[in-house]
Amino acid sequence: MRIVVDVMGGDQGCGVVVDGVKLALQSYPDISELHLVGRQPEIEAALRRARCRDPRLQLHHASEVVVMEDKPIEAVRKKKDCSMVRAVELVRDGKAEAVISPGNTGALVAAATLRLRRLESVERAPLAAIMPSAKGEFLLIDVGANPECKPIHLVQFALMGSIYSRELLHHRKPRVGLLSNGTEETKGNELTRETARLLRQTHLNFIGYVEGYDLFADRVEIVVTDGFTGNIVLKSTESLSKTILRAVRRELAANPMRQLGAALARGAFQKIKRRLDPDAYGGAPLLGLNGVVIKAHGGAREKAIMNAIRVATETIQNKINETIVREVAQATPNLGLAKTAVHAPASAVA
Amino acid sequence: MRIVVDVMGGDQGCGVVVDGVKLALQSYPDISELHLVGRQPEIEAALRRARCRDPRLQLHHASEVVVMEDKPIEAVRKKKDCSMVRAVELVRDGKAEAVISPGNTGALVAAATLRLRRLESVERAPLAAIMPSAKGEFLLIDVGANPECKPIHLVQFALMGSIYSRELLHHRKPRVGLLSNGTEETKGNELTRETARLLRQTHLNFIGYVEGYDLFADRVEIVVTDGFTGNIVLKSTESLSKTILRAVRRELAANPMRQLGAALARGAFQKIKRRLDPDAYGGAPLLGLNGVVIKAHGGAREKAIMNAIRVATETIQNKINETIVREVAQATPNLGLAKTAVHAPASAVA
Repeated sequence: MRIVVDVMGGDQGCGVVVDGVKLALQSYPDISELHLVGRQPEIEAALRRARCRDPRLQLHHASEVVVMEDKPIEAVRKKKDCSMVRAVELVRDGKAEAVISPGNTGALVAAATLRLRRLESVERAPLAAIMPSAKGEFLLIDVGANPECKPIHLVQFALMGSIYSRELLHHRKPRVGLLSNGTEETKGNELTRETARLLRQTHLNFIGYVEGYDLFADRVEIVVTDGFTGNIVLKSTESLSKTILRAVRRELAANPMRQLGAALARGAFQKIKRRLDPDAYGGAPLLGLNGVVIKAHGGAREKAIMNAIRVATETIQNKINETIVREVAQATPNLGLAKTAVHAPASAVA
Repeated sequence: MRIVVDVMGGDQGCGVVVDGVKLALQSYPDISELHLVGRQPEIEAALRRARCRDPRLQLHHASEVVVMEDKPIEAVRKKKDCSMVRAVELVRDGKAEAVISPGNTGALVAAATLRLRRLESVERAPLAAIMPSAKGEFLLIDVGANPECKPIHLVQFALMGSIYSRELLHHRKPRVGLLSNGTEETKGNELTRETARLLRQTHLNFIGYVEGYDLFADRVEIVVTDGFTGNIVLKSTESLSKTILRAVRRELAANPMRQLGAALARGAFQKIKRRLDPDAYGGAPLLGLNGVVIKAHGGAREKAIMNAIRVATETIQNKINETIVREVAQATPNLGLAKTAVHAPASAVA
């Protein structure tokens, strides 16, 4: 397997990414080539510091870097020689099967969507986030790649999410929920009502509408929504987690007795912090494209980079993209047929 | 001031609501009449238990109760003699200025919207939730009353939210943000782009798009969104808070050392729990109707009921509804005029 890593653009700098690459090379012998893209002198210095010499490594110089402040599409268009675009292009040109980047999410989505073709029959490429729930995790899809969606897009997100959940997260029959403002069928909007109607015609384990209360309660493995709503949910819950953890830290430091208490109960906080840590899941896959694209967290440390590389190898090994092509091609015409045949008015949707 | 309380339908039972009413009667001498609506024998028993005898109290028997499992509009239509509808009708009939209910949110929205007229020029009545942020609080509006909105509705939500924030939460020039999937102007969807254009023409302190990361960071006092997205944000963040607090409790109980630590640091957790507690804010106002409508939290305890009654009295005293009528009437025609005069294409929106 051949993997590309965009080593620039993460919050932690190039060194941390290179350290993660070293860990991955040690852990995954199935990797045959690992391409690093970025400013060559910085990469070489980081490799020296990490004492990482591996014949599978190949360096590619790129003079520019997309930073977090860059406007996505503008950055991809103007920064022609940036590491992110160059990394994606290695996949486009058949030099590698997967690309990983901890850089600007919007720019990675733009770069991958513009440079890689979509898989056959796939109409939109969604970004999926793996979110921790009370006891397990769930896939939220789309978290921002497609702010304006049609019902067929959401149905395809459900299909792709189910495949990912089944093959990589080992849920045998993952439950698919459609995010709405309440679980009753009378809830939702035009988009969700038609999507629900279509989802009922698929082979998916569709459980109907789910609402905000269901997300962290282990009632659903795949939560489908448009990229506008998904992005808001992703960011607001991530920001709330951080706000609560910060408040806990501040309150525990407020006086010596609390500090002692906090020291005794340290294990508890570490465990919770680990559970809420986006690093644990190794990144968010951008599904439906010709090539495996993984967005590592901006603040990803070495283990998170290693995990993202592991997820990339598993995605290749499990032939996720071939399965997506097959299942989307099977499901989509059936929907069209049913839609024409049934002529169900909106109010008749059961 | 004359206040109606629907004493049924909360999770804590009629007794807790009556205890809250007693506290309110003791604290707010400006209340001239307090109407209690529900099953008379239960109310009388609760008043006896609370040793509450106050000449300002008036009892109204209603034989039915809307429960949390009821479908909102169905419940309002079929349970003709339910306490919630009867309570709203007392406001409609001019017997009181404000109604408070801890019952089924959807049913209260339906009952109030169906039974009370909207204020002049107000096109939709939104439900606003007061949410705790890192250091203060912000108003999220609409959290579910109107899942499908037009730009003019969101503009009016911003106007009403600003008035509420200014008059009741004492923010002198509250910042209004429009919830979107990113802060750049290129983000958003059709609804947010047109709403942003209109909001720039108002006198409001409109700061543009806000995203999920901004919500809890004290960057904005009013977050405007449609009831679909707002409901999802409200429920998913509430559910995440609970999930985290539950995990903290579980982890702290896991072994004797942690239990000791937790005991020493107890004050810290109590403070955080209090900050996240929806009871602190006394309820969510349903704005824009002829009459003051406050949804108390379903799990509201006596202090929360007392707070909801306090908020109702303040809303009346501060003449929030008169201000809404005035400001909405002033702002709305200007928008229409500007819209016709400017003819700005979507891409020209600065």
